[in-house]
Amino acid sequence: MNESKVSQLNITLVDVTLRDGGIVNDFYFDDDFVKALYQANWQAGVDVMEMGYRASDKLFSREKFGKWKFCDEQDLRAVIPLDHTLKIAVMADVGRTDMSTFLPKEQSIIDIVRVACYLDQVAEAVQMVNTLHGLGYFVSCNIMAITQGDSQTVQNALQMIATSQADVIYATDSFGALYPDDVKNIINAFVQTAKACGKQVGFHAHNNQNLAFANTWQALQNGATFIDSTMGGMGRGAGNCSTEQMLGYLGGKYSLVPALGFLQSWVQPLKKQLKWGYDVPYLITGLANAHPRQAIDFIKQQRSDLNNFYQEVFSKKE
Amino acid sequence: MNESKVSQLNITLVDVTLRDGGIVNDFYFDDDFVKALYQANWQAGVDVMEMGYRASDKLFSREKFGKWKFCDEQDLRAVIPLDHTLKIAVMADVGRTDMSTFLPKEQSIIDIVRVACYLDQVAEAVQMVNTLHGLGYFVSCNIMAITQGDSQTVQNALQMIATSQADVIYATDSFGALYPDDVKNIINAFVQTAKACGKQVGFHAHNNQNLAFANTWQALQNGATFIDSTMGGMGRGAGNCSTEQMLGYLGGKYSLVPALGFLQSWVQPLKKQLKWGYDVPYLITGLANAHPRQAIDFIKQQRSDLNNFYQEVFSKKE
Repeated sequence: MNESKVSQLNITLVDVTLRDGGIVNDFYFDDDFVKALYQANWQAGVDVMEMGYRASDKLFSREKFGKWKFCDEQDLRAVIPLDHTLKIAVMADVGRTDMSTFLPKEQSIIDIVRVACYLDQVAEAVQMVNTLHGLGYFVSCNIMAITQGDSQTVQNALQMIATSQADVIYATDSFGALYPDDVKNIINAFVQTAKACGKQVGFHAHNNQNLAFANTWQALQNGATFIDSTMGGMGRGAGNCSTEQMLGYLGGKYSLVPALGFLQSWVQPLKKQLKWGYDVPYLITGLANAHPRQAIDFIKQQRSDLNNFYQEVFSKKE
Repeated sequence: MNESKVSQLNITLVDVTLRDGGIVNDFYFDDDFVKALYQANWQAGVDVMEMGYRASDKLFSREKFGKWKFCDEQDLRAVIPLDHTLKIAVMADVGRTDMSTFLPKEQSIIDIVRVACYLDQVAEAVQMVNTLHGLGYFVSCNIMAITQGDSQTVQNALQMIATSQADVIYATDSFGALYPDDVKNIINAFVQTAKACGKQVGFHAHNNQNLAFANTWQALQNGATFIDSTMGGMGRGAGNCSTEQMLGYLGGKYSLVPALGFLQSWVQPLKKQLKWGYDVPYLITGLANAHPRQAIDFIKQQRSDLNNFYQEVFSKKE
C-alpha cells in the first residue's frame, strides 16, 4: 500500500549484514561474498555498509574468528573500491577494542565508527566517541539492550551522550523485547535529547517477536533517521530487520532488485548451512526481556519442549 | 516490555487455525488434533474457535477436501463438548455456501457464523448475514482483500453492512499488503461506521510482509475488538498472526503456556510435512498488493530466481 511512507530523503539506511550476521558465522565471510554485498548495497541505494567489528586481537583469537571481527585496514581495502560512494562503517565495542588501531580518518578507508555500549558503559563510550571524533570520523554511540534500564537510566545515559561529540545516538533492542508503542516512547525521548544538541537518532531492531520491521517502521515515524538492517534478516538468533523489507518499503532512491539478486546468489545458499530467524523460543525470550542465548541453545540442541523452556526462561528472570 | 498493552477485557480472540490453516492441508485435520486444539484454546483463554468453512458439497468435493471444509453439525458435535464455554464459529463464503444447511441456532452447536465476501459481493453478504441473524446466530461480515478497493469503495461497502444485522464488521488483509499506518486509517474508518450502528470491528492479518502481528497490534490500538490468529501462524502462504503472540502480548486472562504445549505436540510435527510462513516471495507479492498464489507456486516449485519472480509479479500488476 505504501500510503504511510516516510520521506526517504532524510534517511540513512545502514546494512549491518557483516557485523550482526557475522555473529552467526563467527565473521567467516569470504571476500567474494563481501564484494557482492558491497555491489548489491551500492546498487540498491543503501547509504552505509558496516563491515564488522574492530575488535582487539589481544582479547579475541584470530584463529577462532574470521577477519571481519577485526576489520583491519588492509582487509577492508582489499574488498572496497578506493572511490567508494557507499560509506564504510565499523563497530567498536566498549571494553573490546584496541583504540590505538584507529588511524586518522584521512589515512583510513573507514568513514563511520559506531561505538557500542551497554547502559552502564556510557562513560567509557563517550571517551571513545570523542577520541574517534578527534581522529576525524563520523561517530555514532549505540546503546545496546535498551530494555535493560528503566526510563530514568536511559535518560541519564542520553544526557551523557548529549555532551559527547557523537553525531548519532542509537537505541538498540538487543532482546527484541519492544512493542511498537515502546519504540515510540523511546525514540521520542531520544529525538528530544538529540535534537537539542544537533544530533540524529538511530534504531536497531531484533526480530525475536517478529517485530523487527514493524518496530523499525515505528522508529521512522517518530523521527529516527539512521536505520539498521541486514540482508535476509541475517543476525544472531531471530535476526534483524531485513534490508529487503526496508528497500521495498522506502522506495524512491532505493531499489529492491539488487538485494533480491544478492539474496538469491549468496543468502539462500548460506541459509542451508546456518540458522537464524524468528521462532517460538525467541518469542519467549523476547516476552521475558531476556538475552536470546537460551533460545539459541534450545534450537541448537533440537529441543522441542517449549513448556519446559518457558519455565526455564521465566524462572531465570525471577 | 508490554507497556503498551491494550485492555484485554474488551477483546475477543478468535483462533482460526482450522479454517485458515486448513487452506494449507485441504482441511485434513484429524479429530485428535481438533480436540487438542479445543483444549489448548480453552485453557489459554481464547474466546472463539473457528472450526472451518461451511462450504457447499454441491460445489466442493468431499473426496478432495477434509471434513472441516464443510463443518457438518455431527462432525462438530463429535469433537466439541456439549457444554463448551469456548464459542464455536464457522465461516460461510459468499457464493460457496448452501444456506439451507444452517439449522436454527438453538438446534446447532455453532455460536457464531462469519460471512466472508469480497468488496463486490457485499450485497449478497448482507442477505446471508440477515438470514443467519434471523436463525439466531451471532454474525460477523468479513470483507476479504480489503486492499483491492479504494477508500470510497470500502466506505460504500461499510455503509451497506451498517444497515445489516451483522454484529461485527471485519477488515481482512488477504494480500498482506498493509503497513501499520494503513491499518490505522482503515480501522479508524471501520470503527467510526460500526460504532454509529452499535457494531464491533474485527481485523484479520496475513504475514506476507512479516507484519501480521504488528498490524494486528495496530488494529487493537485503533479500536478493533475482534482479532483473528492461528497456532504457529498456520495459514495460506506466509500465514497469519500467531495465537501464541497474541496470548503473550495480551496477558491477563490469557495464558501462553497451553498454546506452547499444543505447538510442541501438534504444530511442530505438522511443520515437518507442510510449508507456511514468511519468506521473501511473499514480501514481493505483499509489496505488489497481489494474491500470494504466485509466491506459493514459486516456493512449491523450489525456484530461487527472485529477480525473475519480482518481474513476473509486477508485470502482472501492470
